[in-house]
Amino acid sequence: MKSALFKHRSIRKFRPTPIPAETLRDCLEAATRASTCGNMQLYSLVVTREEALRERLAPCHFNQPMVREAPCLVTVCADVHRFSMWCEQREAEPAYDNFAWFLNASTDALLAAQNFCIEAELHGLGICILGTTIYTAAEIARILELPKGVIPLTTIVVGYPDESPVLTDRLPLEAVVHYEKYTDYTAAEIDELWAEREESAETKRLLEENGLPNLARIFTERRYVRRDNLAISQSYFALLKEKGFFNNN
Amino acid sequence: MKSALFKHRSIRKFRPTPIPAETLRDCLEAATRASTCGNMQLYSLVVTREEALRERLAPCHFNQPMVREAPCLVTVCADVHRFSMWCEQREAEPAYDNFAWFLNASTDALLAAQNFCIEAELHGLGICILGTTIYTAAEIARILELPKGVIPLTTIVVGYPDESPVLTDRLPLEAVVHYEKYTDYTAAEIDELWAEREESAETKRLLEENGLPNLARIFTERRYVRRDNLAISQSYFALLKEKGFFNNN
Repeated sequence: MKSALFKHRSIRKFRPTPIPAETLRDCLEAATRASTCGNMQLYSLVVTREEALRERLAPCHFNQPMVREAPCLVTVCADVHRFSMWCEQREAEPAYDNFAWFLNASTDALLAAQNFCIEAELHGLGICILGTTIYTAAEIARILELPKGVIPLTTIVVGYPDESPVLTDRLPLEAVVHYEKYTDYTAAEIDELWAEREESAETKRLLEENGLPNLARIFTERRYVRRDNLAISQSYFALLKEKGFFNNN
Repeated sequence: MKSALFKHRSIRKFRPTPIPAETLRDCLEAATRASTCGNMQLYSLVVTREEALRERLAPCHFNQPMVREAPCLVTVCADVHRFSMWCEQREAEPAYDNFAWFLNASTDALLAAQNFCIEAELHGLGICILGTTIYTAAEIARILELPKGVIPLTTIVVGYPDESPVLTDRLPLEAVVHYEKYTDYTAAEIDELWAEREESAETKRLLEENGLPNLARIFTERRYVRRDNLAISQSYFALLKEKGFFNNN
């Protein structure tokens, strides 16, 4: 009997039903039970339910309808601000305004985020992780009024599902697992790992729709193109500096 | 009835009992069921069980005894190498050698890591997350022979527990949760959020042991000092560039 983790599907259609307060509280508390660096809890979870505010956030997530339809958005942020404020009030000099602490805080935040998602699903809720958060992090930070020391990492859309999608395929387990050390892939192994996905009906449909000869080119020419990737890299890195996560000297 | 997530304790003492292959496989498969950016699975899990290799990794984790005692270490890595290799074999030009994809891949990797931890605990295993991974990432990368496009983020120590620690305290939930937007803390709120921890017997013991007037100064003067933080920031950022995650132009 497989655990609930094996049943995760990203949900993109939600009923407007609000999440009961005690259910939401359980999800948030479960988030805080995840491992955290030195028990410092270097993250904040910004829970946005107001319609007007979700409306303002929607363009940051490319107006995906679920952002308006779901009753709740949780913007997951790395946060060294709260801990630094405590240090300063105790005449201790905090030194968390650097890249190491962006990494520590991100780790804390993302482990907590996944706990939130799992607990939500145990309560019959559905979730979707919005990668768009890093594309538009500066605008999200403005809307949510994030102070220095706080930066958005990802967003969880959460609510009661209004669809029952099938389980998404994954690469064979041996694609992502290495025993002892990293074993580099041969060209033949790469072919084999992607074979099933490349031959699927879904891929055939996508190739026809996009007029492209293979699935990889859908990723590189349609979904994640160089120009966008570089623009996102630059804007996020600029925000990282602005928010005080890169005083490396 | 609270879910298993509420029972998580970091385990630092392990029995040497090996993890049965099917149990380990369940944990790794559960990891792959986490949400992943565009279903790209931009991570690798390096599962190290050989004693000699764990011995070589131990200094990277400050020789914490658990690294030698536990039967298994999982080094969690952001990995754009495998996906880029596939693209190149399909005459698609990958553009994942930049900071945006370090962020995307890290998110994928850490959500998967937390799934691994939860599944492990459901199987009666214990885990500990090693923050030391980012301190010594370059050396870990050398030992595990990580190619360009792959960088370590964290390490999970996993095995059967040989201790039953009490549940660790956390800040009150309102410390990390903000409703609608981020609400900045007043000085009085900061005092209140840390009050219970500051007054605990554990804190009193630590203050005596360290000869310091408050808990915050244990963090800033003993645990995470500026010089180390900056050295880690610089070495990890240098590795990020070396591994090809920062071609931002």
